Amino acid sequence: MTSVSIIGSGNVGWHLAHVLCRRGFEIHSCFSRNFSKAETLAKEVKAEPVDQLNQVAQYSDLYLVAVTDDAITAVFTELDKVVVGKTIAHTSGAFPLVTALKKNKSAVFYPLQTFSKAKKVNFSNVPILIEADDNVQEKALETLAMSFSSRVQRISSEQRAQLHVAAVFACNFSNHMLYLSDTILKEKGLNFDLLMPLVNETISKLNSLPPKEAQTGPAMRNDQKTIEKHLALLSDYDQKKIYQIITNHILKTHKTQ
Amino acid sequence: MTSVSIIGSGNVGWHLAHVLCRRGFEIHSCFSRNFSKAETLAKEVKAEPVDQLNQVAQYSDLYLVAVTDDAITAVFTELDKVVVGKTIAHTSGAFPLVTALKKNKSAVFYPLQTFSKAKKVNFSNVPILIEADDNVQEKALETLAMSFSSRVQRISSEQRAQLHVAAVFACNFSNHMLYLSDTILKEKGLNFDLLMPLVNETISKLNSLPPKEAQTGPAMRNDQKTIEKHLALLSDYDQKKIYQIITNHILKTHKTQ
Repeated sequence: MTSVSIIGSGNVGWHLAHVLCRRGFEIHSCFSRNFSKAETLAKEVKAEPVDQLNQVAQYSDLYLVAVTDDAITAVFTELDKVVVGKTIAHTSGAFPLVTALKKNKSAVFYPLQTFSKAKKVNFSNVPILIEADDNVQEKALETLAMSFSSRVQRISSEQRAQLHVAAVFACNFSNHMLYLSDTILKEKGLNFDLLMPLVNETISKLNSLPPKEAQTGPAMRNDQKTIEKHLALLSDYDQKKIYQIITNHILKTHKTQ
Repeated sequence: MTSVSIIGSGNVGWHLAHVLCRRGFEIHSCFSRNFSKAETLAKEVKAEPVDQLNQVAQYSDLYLVAVTDDAITAVFTELDKVVVGKTIAHTSGAFPLVTALKKNKSAVFYPLQTFSKAKKVNFSNVPILIEADDNVQEKALETLAMSFSSRVQRISSEQRAQLHVAAVFACNFSNHMLYLSDTILKEKGLNFDLLMPLVNETISKLNSLPPKEAQTGPAMRNDQKTIEKHLALLSDYDQKKIYQIITNHILKTHKTQ
């Protein structure tokens, strides 16, 4: 595989288009329903912008479909009418391998990372998780992924779905804990920046300890007096409820396991 | 202040004794109810081990009391009978300034970090939060803290208590999210290490974005189909409940604010 068309101009499509362009792959088409978005990305990666799927270049080796999960089936079905004998891969963590293609091979090319356009991503250690109709496709996608990542792995749809829900806890939910922390500090005119050394150390510990062993704090010590003080300090009902539920779960999981 | 005695040989006392010793402060006594623990630490920082508070050296400028919150009042009261005209400071985030001292000055010297003996801490950016009976004490403690940290700040007991509950969310609760993530992965034979680039990027984003703006994921997008898929995948009742509560709170806080 040496040429790619990118379907979708969101965060994932944008970052994949850029890294593939940097690694010397030819990007043929950049598709977005919003033509000006397609145009912006296409210009950056020297491709053709299109806003209709039937205008997408027919000679790319790979069609990377980075659209919302809701749109994947429709886009795959439409592309299957436009191109023949190619590989069409979606980039979603939660969506299974599409099995409805008639004229093309179906695959998954899932980069396990959180992407924002504003922030450059170092792809060299981003896990690229691959699944495909057959071994030949998997091998070809692996070779392509290994051009920019050292962590390429084949996994099943079932494992990918599990990984995706685990990633929600590890990324979105831990970020929400930091958001709550920020909100609590702001009430007393304190800056979140004060907590960053603690946050960095919390994560840095995980290079040498599993999360269970790295746990510290009042719940871990079953320090009920501090827990009560904290609950009395929290003025917001939701914050109190979340504090209680997570504290109880730390108590429970560190006692029974 | 050039000399210190350390009361308590837990993680905080251990790390503070070591950094002060490295910075050239004289450590007189290391106290622990468990003599062999006092002895181990004392040997490392060239001090005298004691297991009775009335045996603590009487000529230290500062007595750093790094004991559990429950023991602080008793230790302060006992030390106040042993030494005169000195500064006695506790190192707790959740405990207020002790106001019951008769012959000594009371202070707080709170290092905002998560400590494990097994892991060396770079103290240079650990916030040291100070409170004392008077300005002279505060200034002296600031000077001492600035010998090893560039982030020394005076804060009130009220602010410190708020910071402590915020730190529980930022450190203990985010670590628990990572623990849940690890548990979910293990069920399908997947390794937590796969998620570390995502976790590192989640935290790295916070150098340029506040947590609220850094939020991504199905709850943030109000992607109900993915949320339902995730709930169906989670086999454990508690995991399901935590998923629902945090998802609902992300939906609520990103809609109404």
